[in-house]
Amino acid sequence: MPGDAAPAALVDMLQQYRGRARAVVRPGSTAEVAAVVRLLHRHRVPIVPQGGNTGLAGGATPDASGEAVVLSLARLDRIRAIDLDNDTLTLEAGVLLDAAREAAQREGRLFPLSLPSGGSCTVGGNLATNAGGTQVLRFGNTRALTLGIEVVTAEGEVWDGLRGLRKDNAGYDLRDLYIGSEGTLGIITAATLKLFPLPAVLQTAILRVRGIAGVIALLRRARQGFGASLTGFEIMSPTIWQLVATHAPEYRLPFPADEHDDVWHVLIETADEGREAEARDRLAEVIVAAVDDGLVDDAVVAESLAQRQAFWRIREHGLGEAQRRDGWNAKHDVSLPISRIPDFVAETGAALAAAFPGIRLFVHGHAGDGNLHVHVARPLGTGPEYWQTHETAVRALVQRAVAERGGSICAEHGVGQLKAGVLHEYKPALELALMRRIKAALDPHGLLNPGKVLAR
Amino acid sequence: MPGDAAPAALVDMLQQYRGRARAVVRPGSTAEVAAVVRLLHRHRVPIVPQGGNTGLAGGATPDASGEAVVLSLARLDRIRAIDLDNDTLTLEAGVLLDAAREAAQREGRLFPLSLPSGGSCTVGGNLATNAGGTQVLRFGNTRALTLGIEVVTAEGEVWDGLRGLRKDNAGYDLRDLYIGSEGTLGIITAATLKLFPLPAVLQTAILRVRGIAGVIALLRRARQGFGASLTGFEIMSPTIWQLVATHAPEYRLPFPADEHDDVWHVLIETADEGREAEARDRLAEVIVAAVDDGLVDDAVVAESLAQRQAFWRIREHGLGEAQRRDGWNAKHDVSLPISRIPDFVAETGAALAAAFPGIRLFVHGHAGDGNLHVHVARPLGTGPEYWQTHETAVRALVQRAVAERGGSICAEHGVGQLKAGVLHEYKPALELALMRRIKAALDPHGLLNPGKVLAR
Ligand SMILES: Cc1cc2nc3c(=O)[nH]c(=O)nc-3n(C[C@H](O)[C@H](O)[C@H](O)COP(=O)(O)OP(=O)(O)OC[C@H]3O[C@@H](n4cnc5c(N)ncnc54)[C@H](O)[C@@H]3O)c2cc1C
Ligand SMILES: Cc1cc2nc3c(=O)[nH]c(=O)nc-3n(C[C@H](O)[C@H](O)[C@H](O)COP(=O)(O)OP(=O)(O)OC[C@H]3O[C@@H](n4cnc5c(N)ncnc54)[C@H](O)[C@@H]3O)c2cc1C
Repeated sequence: MPGDAAPAALVDMLQQYRGRARAVVRPGSTAEVAAVVRLLHRHRVPIVPQGGNTGLAGGATPDASGEAVVLSLARLDRIRAIDLDNDTLTLEAGVLLDAAREAAQREGRLFPLSLPSGGSCTVGGNLATNAGGTQVLRFGNTRALTLGIEVVTAEGEVWDGLRGLRKDNAGYDLRDLYIGSEGTLGIITAATLKLFPLPAVLQTAILRVRGIAGVIALLRRARQGFGASLTGFEIMSPTIWQLVATHAPEYRLPFPADEHDDVWHVLIETADEGREAEARDRLAEVIVAAVDDGLVDDAVVAESLAQRQAFWRIREHGLGEAQRRDGWNAKHDVSLPISRIPDFVAETGAALAAAFPGIRLFVHGHAGDGNLHVHVARPLGTGPEYWQTHETAVRALVQRAVAERGGSICAEHGVGQLKAGVLHEYKPALELALMRRIKAALDPHGLLNPGKVLAR
Repeated sequence: MPGDAAPAALVDMLQQYRGRARAVVRPGSTAEVAAVVRLLHRHRVPIVPQGGNTGLAGGATPDASGEAVVLSLARLDRIRAIDLDNDTLTLEAGVLLDAAREAAQREGRLFPLSLPSGGSCTVGGNLATNAGGTQVLRFGNTRALTLGIEVVTAEGEVWDGLRGLRKDNAGYDLRDLYIGSEGTLGIITAATLKLFPLPAVLQTAILRVRGIAGVIALLRRARQGFGASLTGFEIMSPTIWQLVATHAPEYRLPFPADEHDDVWHVLIETADEGREAEARDRLAEVIVAAVDDGLVDDAVVAESLAQRQAFWRIREHGLGEAQRRDGWNAKHDVSLPISRIPDFVAETGAALAAAFPGIRLFVHGHAGDGNLHVHVARPLGTGPEYWQTHETAVRALVQRAVAERGGSICAEHGVGQLKAGVLHEYKPALELALMRRIKAALDPHGLLNPGKVLAR
């Protein structure tokens, strides 16, 4: 039932999508999922898989027709096995991400996937959207953390692909086809994930860097200097730093803000297995060299766990809070070849300023992965109605700038229903045609999450 | 033309397969590949893609019918671009692996894929077989090193998927579907690969370890102690060590051999960006702790580049040379969950000894990836005819033991024609059915490398 009283399963977390459904079904095991899917398949009823319903692209919300059944994986919440010699964790799709991390931690292992939504999203949802987060630089996206999966097909058969193998070239890579397919090719019911040693030493620093070109030069040195120890390289534009200083002063910034000075702030994190003194020395060396060469103005290294957490709070909460207080803005989650970030930032900023006088551009994100959050705020002094006339044009400008540089307009959050309709503007027609062939091969009746990823 | 005078392109490197073809075509560009494929597609002529023709599963050899055309990628040998800020290398499929490594090295970067066949295999062939090698423990297989690919489809259209992005969730993962598909779904004409910093400090050691269970316990400590610095963990069974001592004494072993003592030898390698003294201390710490706890008997750390190379020569050439001098043996390239390696080794050894008295088992491989080379040699005193009566039974015993433990019988070298016929014995029927659906979707006329991966 739509309307204000719609059950939570029919509305997305950001309240941007609202749908109807015949029912919300909550099976408790893989066999029950398969039985439900077989029944619905026989009657040709569309199915919308749903995990924690925290997705940001409307992928888990049914359409308005009311024909679909929402299939919740939430009750498949068992940890099936932890294998400490193989360093693997096998669990069901409905396990919450933070519960998976805790299960690993209890055994002295790290499951590195880390998202702000970890307390409510499911591992099945992470797999279905190939979620990213803050540890991608070293550990990769969800795809890179997954060795095997169990899938219920469109016809309700169970594929046991739960292998805990690091090398297996026996046939086509079905695993990676299902991962990231947002519930449109099959329903993921379980997975075997990779575990890692818990790092012994974490180092966190915030650096003041001259200009976006300086940021990328610093990234190059950080990769060289820290190698696989570099786990975080998060950047914040002068404008967003200033916004936090103005609107969210309770997140005490370690450096003053001046949006007219072209100074970017970079949060660097390293994780090491060695001794603390060595890791400290290495961090100091890289910073001192960057200061000597005029790339970095100043730096502060976290001296305690509390200070480290305070740095991350600025990044994970302060930026968002300041923006909320500033008012709604047009958010883009994009990725670029890292080498194109400087000209993307400079030219997109200039083009936006020319086309939309007074408009404000906030840039932050996981620069180490080429992943930027590009948020465009209306000019000071305008009201929310500004977006009624300008949103489409602003989005088109940003997305074209990304596409022209070989970037992606869906870096992290997937396509869902949010971008299914525009994908053809940014992808080769042949690629979409190949995707449609795969969809027809694995879901011939088009019953799995119709209208998501591929527009109807 | 078959027969002794068959051109090199019609025979595989191990001379196990021999085929016929209408022609061997050697296009020089992606556009020419596409034009050739369009023409052959119109006339429904099967195509066998071929790179360096070093594959070990007969994948690049046409069948005996003489209907197919061999399509060589060897002339597509240009490096298209190196992007040092994005840490990517874009090249054509025919570039030799060692040439790709050298191109990276010239710019101060590491392309980590490393195979003994690097001087003659192509990057396109590495992608088509998802090749592994000695650096998988830290860097993953070829799949994990690849950001984007360019593909000519079965119909001769060109898909430009050459993205240099580390996060991109805009649609299905076609890239990983083509990677590892051994030329049966599309022809890879170019790729964008990841580069890494060159490590500053390499440490190499050989350790004497008590029993296979001790080997796995040591691996656990090494992962914990070295974290991402651990790049190699190669194991050698007592029997293979003894064989080198007997048949290839010119590879001077750092420790004496006694095949009746249950002592395994492990080659450990670490790669660090830090200072040499630190890396040395850390290696010493891990070794001393393992000696104190009775896991390790003795250890020798390479003191020079020459000694490091000598250690690797034992692993990469000595083992093979000793086996060649011993006579042909039945080779299995398998992978297992690491936790199952001890019981696999013990029980398979016992079962072989019981069923085939006097038979000899040599085990070595990349234990850090769960990847073992399991080579079974005939009893001393028997002749090559032993295999006429026993090969099938020996192979079935080993493969069943792998399958029962959730392992794979195609860890590294792919399916090709070698294992296409037995895959159904080790894979769920549903998985093969899904693979056939994918094949029909992307190559509806079955023209790309017929009979490989999927049996006819
Ligand atoms: C505060 C917040 C911060 C976030 N930060 C990040 C971030 O840093 N990085 C990032 O990548 N994402 C982020 N996200 C979005 C992220 O995609 C989700 O949090 C998570 O990955 C989705 O999991 P879920 O269980 O909520 O899936 P849902 O929202 O329920 O579903 C998402 C999609 O997957 C499908 N699906 C779900 N479960 C299954 C299954 N078992 N089998 C098949 N299909 C399934 C659904 O049909 C839908 O298409 C954030 C979200 C929030 C609210
Ligand atoms: C001495 C030696 C050591 C080896 N060591 C290892 C090892 O440690 N690890 C490992 O994984 N492998 C190893 N191999 C095998 C390995 O698979 C190959 O060396 C290499 O990856 C194949 O590359 P190639 O160019 O020779 O491909 P080919 O042999 O020409 O082809 C292999 C398969 O890929 C297909 N193919 C080739 N190029 C393309 C393309 N551009 N597009 C689509 N399909 C294509 C072919 O049709 C065939 O099915 C070794 C081989 C030898 C001889």
